[in-house]
Amino acid sequence: MSPLSSNLKTIAFRCSNVNKRSFSLGRIEMAFVGKSDRFNGVTVYSRDQNHVENFAENLQQSLEQWDAEKKRGVWFKVALEESDWIPVLAKNGFNYHHARDGYVMMYKWLPTHEASNIPPYAHTMLGVGAVVVNEKDDLLVVCERYNRITPWKLPGGYVEPGENFVDAAIREVYEETNIRTEFKSVLCLRHAHGGQFSCSDLYTVICLKPMTEDILKDDREIHDCKWMPIADFLAHPDIHELNKFFVQKFLDNRRDGVAIESKHGIHQLLKKPYTVYHASTQTSSKM
Amino acid sequence: MSPLSSNLKTIAFRCSNVNKRSFSLGRIEMAFVGKSDRFNGVTVYSRDQNHVENFAENLQQSLEQWDAEKKRGVWFKVALEESDWIPVLAKNGFNYHHARDGYVMMYKWLPTHEASNIPPYAHTMLGVGAVVVNEKDDLLVVCERYNRITPWKLPGGYVEPGENFVDAAIREVYEETNIRTEFKSVLCLRHAHGGQFSCSDLYTVICLKPMTEDILKDDREIHDCKWMPIADFLAHPDIHELNKFFVQKFLDNRRDGVAIESKHGIHQLLKKPYTVYHASTQTSSKM
Repeated sequence: MSPLSSNLKTIAFRCSNVNKRSFSLGRIEMAFVGKSDRFNGVTVYSRDQNHVENFAENLQQSLEQWDAEKKRGVWFKVALEESDWIPVLAKNGFNYHHARDGYVMMYKWLPTHEASNIPPYAHTMLGVGAVVVNEKDDLLVVCERYNRITPWKLPGGYVEPGENFVDAAIREVYEETNIRTEFKSVLCLRHAHGGQFSCSDLYTVICLKPMTEDILKDDREIHDCKWMPIADFLAHPDIHELNKFFVQKFLDNRRDGVAIESKHGIHQLLKKPYTVYHASTQTSSKM
Repeated sequence: MSPLSSNLKTIAFRCSNVNKRSFSLGRIEMAFVGKSDRFNGVTVYSRDQNHVENFAENLQQSLEQWDAEKKRGVWFKVALEESDWIPVLAKNGFNYHHARDGYVMMYKWLPTHEASNIPPYAHTMLGVGAVVVNEKDDLLVVCERYNRITPWKLPGGYVEPGENFVDAAIREVYEETNIRTEFKSVLCLRHAHGGQFSCSDLYTVICLKPMTEDILKDDREIHDCKWMPIADFLAHPDIHELNKFFVQKFLDNRRDGVAIESKHGIHQLLKKPYTVYHASTQTSSKM
């Protein structure tokens, strides 16, 4: 960083902490002050800025300053309330990276002699299904209200943001059928591409042990729901082959004493919880 | 749908196929024509529209029409070139659903007596790591250029949009070390929350068999790279415990003859390829 740009940064930082208009620093006073990151990038969050009178001019001056400072990725997190910034950012070479409830994240890669190393945003939707088998070897099956292309399928649905697979499966089974369950093991993962919102789709099948028996179906999402003998499910001509594969795999794993187990931990450095899933041999009683 | 709104729809559709200005149909001529979906929603893609002279007025009339037609989710896919639509959509109660390279998807849920059933966009970043062990029981390890908090770790990186875990692992190992590999099995999945871009993070560890021996490291991303005896890796005081867990699990599974295998298929109805991962017992020679 040149001494000049370093000075510019210092002045800009000072300006952000006082009334910008009370200074007469020429062009510098209008530059945005963002948060720096370890990749030598900078992020401006629209909600953190004071009243911006002339966004286009401020942006122009900020870009010149960041260019002089040899910044790499420049990010603007634009809240719904400041959405009139977006066309100006677009005209200045910014592209969309991602958006969520209430904001759009736009970015511009400044280096001209280095390819962008910004990873794409999440592109995989997570779903879960549950194999819930009772002591009579009956399988819990549902028929969805809005998706009647298969007569019977495993209960399940989308994983919520921040939710674990297993918790999602237990929640979905309870919401759809009112059956309370406990985790036994992970059975399968199915990965496919070109799904909803042009995302890939990762569907995890979880084996759950039912703790209650009486079904009370969710009328909003579920057309019908019942306990079905596993043999009938496997022999049904109209049930999808992949759903049958999952249930057959449940029987195979029970026979062979093998399963995908889960293990919870706290990350050594990040101090955040994680869950690891891994194959293990098991006693058949635990299956 | 009422006969009136049905007529409006027909007229609007006709108008979209001719020069709108040549008609004098009062308010109806300016309504947008979107793509309907099976949830009784409608999507307008900005790139599919003819020149829009007064976006705010068109939007107002379209919303009234869709309301009369009892539409549920209304979506606008707004390309970078039409980003000046965004502030107007925001002022009319639209929120962001997601954004990707070149467009933002905004939506508004019209029913007032029914909660929105629109699922959130993808919120999980996918990564892969690779356990590559040669015939001498040496493990392929790397030290990253920009992330030096651990001395040695498994090679790996992000899964690209539309890519399978296994392909991503083989690609990353080749990019980082120039070692060519073949798939053996899936070893583990680690799921954690609150990661990059506030997404959850799913990291899959794949066992790969090395087909070449000579390392040529990628200078851009990798600081150092080598074959390391497994025993040294497990005994190293500064290597993360989770990385050691993965390698220990590799040894356990090899001893027990158990693995997570992959199976490719074509979906019966969607006619699209998928991959299923499931636990299996194996002969130890295959491990």
